[in-house]
Amino acid sequence: MKKSLLALAVLGAFVGAASAQSSVTLFGIIDTGVARIENKTGTGVKTTTNQMLNDGVNTSRLGLRGIEDLGGGLKAGFHLEGGVSPDTGGAGVGNKFWNRRATVSLLGNFGEVRLGRDYVPTFWNLTTFDPFGYNGVAQIANVISTLGSGASTLVRADNTIGYFLPSGLGGLYGQAMIAAGEGGANATQANNKYYGGRLGYAAGPFDVAAAYGQTKIDFPGSAGVVAGDKYKMWNVAGSWNFGVAKAVAQWIQGKTSGATDRKQTIWQIGAVVPLGQGEIHAAYDHANMKGGAGEPAGFRDADDANQWGIGYVYNLSKRTALYANYSHLKNKGASNFTVATPGSAAGGTSTGVQGGIRHSF
Amino acid sequence: MKKSLLALAVLGAFVGAASAQSSVTLFGIIDTGVARIENKTGTGVKTTTNQMLNDGVNTSRLGLRGIEDLGGGLKAGFHLEGGVSPDTGGAGVGNKFWNRRATVSLLGNFGEVRLGRDYVPTFWNLTTFDPFGYNGVAQIANVISTLGSGASTLVRADNTIGYFLPSGLGGLYGQAMIAAGEGGANATQANNKYYGGRLGYAAGPFDVAAAYGQTKIDFPGSAGVVAGDKYKMWNVAGSWNFGVAKAVAQWIQGKTSGATDRKQTIWQIGAVVPLGQGEIHAAYDHANMKGGAGEPAGFRDADDANQWGIGYVYNLSKRTALYANYSHLKNKGASNFTVATPGSAAGGTSTGVQGGIRHSF
Amino acid sequence: MKKSLLALAVLGAFVGAASAQSSVTLFGIIDTGVARIENKTGTGVKTTTNQMLNDGVNTSRLGLRGIEDLGGGLKAGFHLEGGVSPDTGGAGVGNKFWNRRATVSLLGNFGEVRLGRDYVPTFWNLTTFDPFGYNGVAQIANVISTLGSGASTLVRADNTIGYFLPSGLGGLYGQAMIAAGEGGANATQANNKYYGGRLGYAAGPFDVAAAYGQTKIDFPGSAGVVAGDKYKMWNVAGSWNFGVAKAVAQWIQGKTSGATDRKQTIWQIGAVVPLGQGEIHAAYDHANMKGGAGEPAGFRDADDANQWGIGYVYNLSKRTALYANYSHLKNKGASNFTVATPGSAAGGTSTGVQGGIRHSF
Repeated sequence: MKKSLLALAVLGAFVGAASAQSSVTLFGIIDTGVARIENKTGTGVKTTTNQMLNDGVNTSRLGLRGIEDLGGGLKAGFHLEGGVSPDTGGAGVGNKFWNRRATVSLLGNFGEVRLGRDYVPTFWNLTTFDPFGYNGVAQIANVISTLGSGASTLVRADNTIGYFLPSGLGGLYGQAMIAAGEGGANATQANNKYYGGRLGYAAGPFDVAAAYGQTKIDFPGSAGVVAGDKYKMWNVAGSWNFGVAKAVAQWIQGKTSGATDRKQTIWQIGAVVPLGQGEIHAAYDHANMKGGAGEPAGFRDADDANQWGIGYVYNLSKRTALYANYSHLKNKGASNFTVATPGSAAGGTSTGVQGGIRHSF
Repeated sequence: MKKSLLALAVLGAFVGAASAQSSVTLFGIIDTGVARIENKTGTGVKTTTNQMLNDGVNTSRLGLRGIEDLGGGLKAGFHLEGGVSPDTGGAGVGNKFWNRRATVSLLGNFGEVRLGRDYVPTFWNLTTFDPFGYNGVAQIANVISTLGSGASTLVRADNTIGYFLPSGLGGLYGQAMIAAGEGGANATQANNKYYGGRLGYAAGPFDVAAAYGQTKIDFPGSAGVVAGDKYKMWNVAGSWNFGVAKAVAQWIQGKTSGATDRKQTIWQIGAVVPLGQGEIHAAYDHANMKGGAGEPAGFRDADDANQWGIGYVYNLSKRTALYANYSHLKNKGASNFTVATPGSAAGGTSTGVQGGIRHSF
Repeated sequence: MKKSLLALAVLGAFVGAASAQSSVTLFGIIDTGVARIENKTGTGVKTTTNQMLNDGVNTSRLGLRGIEDLGGGLKAGFHLEGGVSPDTGGAGVGNKFWNRRATVSLLGNFGEVRLGRDYVPTFWNLTTFDPFGYNGVAQIANVISTLGSGASTLVRADNTIGYFLPSGLGGLYGQAMIAAGEGGANATQANNKYYGGRLGYAAGPFDVAAAYGQTKIDFPGSAGVVAGDKYKMWNVAGSWNFGVAKAVAQWIQGKTSGATDRKQTIWQIGAVVPLGQGEIHAAYDHANMKGGAGEPAGFRDADDANQWGIGYVYNLSKRTALYANYSHLKNKGASNFTVATPGSAAGGTSTGVQGGIRHSF
């Protein structure tokens, strides 16, 4: 993929050629298109909307990153990346302009130490092995619940220190992270205290990884979860590239520990099939909720859900693609997952179809 | 005008020369200066303020845009552009950092299809034919009312799909747009459902264009307009470049359809006169309100207004100019238009003088 | 320090080499690390937190700036710079994305005229002569009070016009600034009316400067200060570079004029000692409050404070450094200064230790 590289120069003595050692890269993706969503409750109340969505194949974004060679195998780097909402002109989320990542790193033979706002280890399994890359109407995120914990660490965490294994370990890769939970009970819910890790192995057509993370809850998001409880996630996933298709399977288990007794197990099977200038993406997800009769609606045994999705991406170039995705989600019991807002699909179905363009720079 | 072009390169294999086919351009304007505003009501209550304004000749902005050549006459492009407020360090408006434009396009012999937040067709008549370019204390916007509809589509709309005619049609140009009105009655007022179009013809010294747009109102901004009403605007305008001066004339009609009976007709005549390294801008605007005695104050027959303005721009270079603008606005009846906030000019006058610098990059 | 220079080119006719006359520079700093704060009140209530701070040696930031040569010794320039919070992904402060500086300038033999949001003259003494550069847990800012005035002009002001003396005056340097106080009593507290100036002289190892600024208060921040009062600051400071160390001394006096009778005098002595690839920073600050018994707690005679801090910066390159800072602050009377939030240290102590990385680009 082509990237924009800002030429670097000593200030006041501009030189035409930049050295690779001190490059700053501007990069981004604009991905937007139209979607038709139909949410229907178990009792037949139907909501349909036409929307523009900003994440059909990739989430729209803008970023800057750079690497400096410090000599002796040591490098320093930074990465600033925030979401873009082409449908409304928005950027970032709330007061986080660089909501996707804002980090500074020291890299060497020992691996990488990274500080700042960053992705959590379990997210890398979710996005790597989901055939839809955790984007669009058919993504696995549609059926993942944080079980009322209000944990905001499904994808990223604030105030983190991360460590990444170096490359060159014969296919082994891995990372660990802690997040300070800055301010504790006096601060906002976003400041969840977190730790987690991920370990994987990739060789030839084969890739497998396991990840774990746990988040201490300060301000529970719904009835039953109390401060001090934890939200824990396990994720084991793998893929095999057969050439004609890459098959993927993923198993996820989320749990709350403490005052409640809730557990959700999700498994996904899927495939990515190359087809001429494009590729087909397909997945089936099953989410199995486990909770006693005393838990609120949505967290009880019967509150399961299934989703299946199919998508096609047609590459106009390495940077630009047209795409279409379709997803159908079926809720059981009092489950209320949807492929997109607004409108309830409690005990009913949610269907989405979208088509758009993804352009990266 | 010179623009900043970020050199592009394949990541990890930096090459010194960028190809024109895959350029990303960083661009911007900083336009700020001091203004003295005097607003006086018909009963003689006077408010005077000294302000810094950020749009004397052009609105201050920052943007990124790029074009990719896909081969076979096809191109893809993106455009992100947001306002800048040098007086306070602000950027964008509310949560819209890229409030001015955030789009992705596919271009070819067929023209251009564009998705995202963009300017509405009627705006292009307003800004092209207003001698002040819809900027500064003397702009035509000062006397345009959305008639209490709360329509936020006078300049731009969210969630739009636009189509632009290709060039090479012998002077004919045009565009059409629809906006999804995402979320409908459940969403915020900003999500107005819109459609509109514009058709023009330019040849030699001559340029004429007509535009129409209508906006469905979900959340009326003032008494009388109800959900489901529409705000409609017609705009017909033309210019003739005599060499010693370019003369412009513009006719605008805004209407609400539905529960109210309001109409505003505005005409403008003006000229842009080249003068050495600079140019003089002058315009006279007349806004004629039409509404029954049952309408609220400001929307009745008598609530008209006139404005005249004169400005001078002195170009220090192609990128940098010094300027001064003067405007005098006279309200009739209960009309309360002003050249700038704060303070009421109901039934009275509003006068503004400003001087500043416009620097583009 | 190396900076990123965006290559400039005429749009549509890209040339590989940019001319120095029309450069746009992208620049930034990511500075973050971990800190341990312990605040203890005089009665022994203790608050300890682990935090990520974004300003150990420099405040994290992102900016764009450019200069255009207009010929005849005249230049135009712009500068947009905003804070970055790598710990949370934030940018700017509140609705000010370019909170650090947003200006346009005209420069010539006469000096520089600058418009927009900018640093106030007194701030330049604070940051230049503080051995910690007004950053990190040991900065002089920890013991500076605006005396309940709510003045937001300690560092920067909105709506300013500034003038800077040209270089080449034999070591003499200086600047003056006025800020419009836009909107007056109808606007937010941020819109303080301000004027100030600074005059300095630097020659060889020697640098001395005096600065003064005063801010008219529209919306007082605490009991006692009334609208129309003023917050005034005097600052006299100097440094002598002995080679083995640079010694600095600074004297600051803040006063409210009007309804209250408050005054704070601060003096600082410190040193910066080069040590191999790094340097040691050390400072001792004494803050002496002066106020009658009728003033609220914190503004009375006894409410003084002392702070001492020491830091070490180890430069991995010109762009990247590792650092550690330690600070201990002792409050007297009802004084409640802290080296970092949260938690009270009223009449007690505040201690901070931090370590991190500063990477600039």
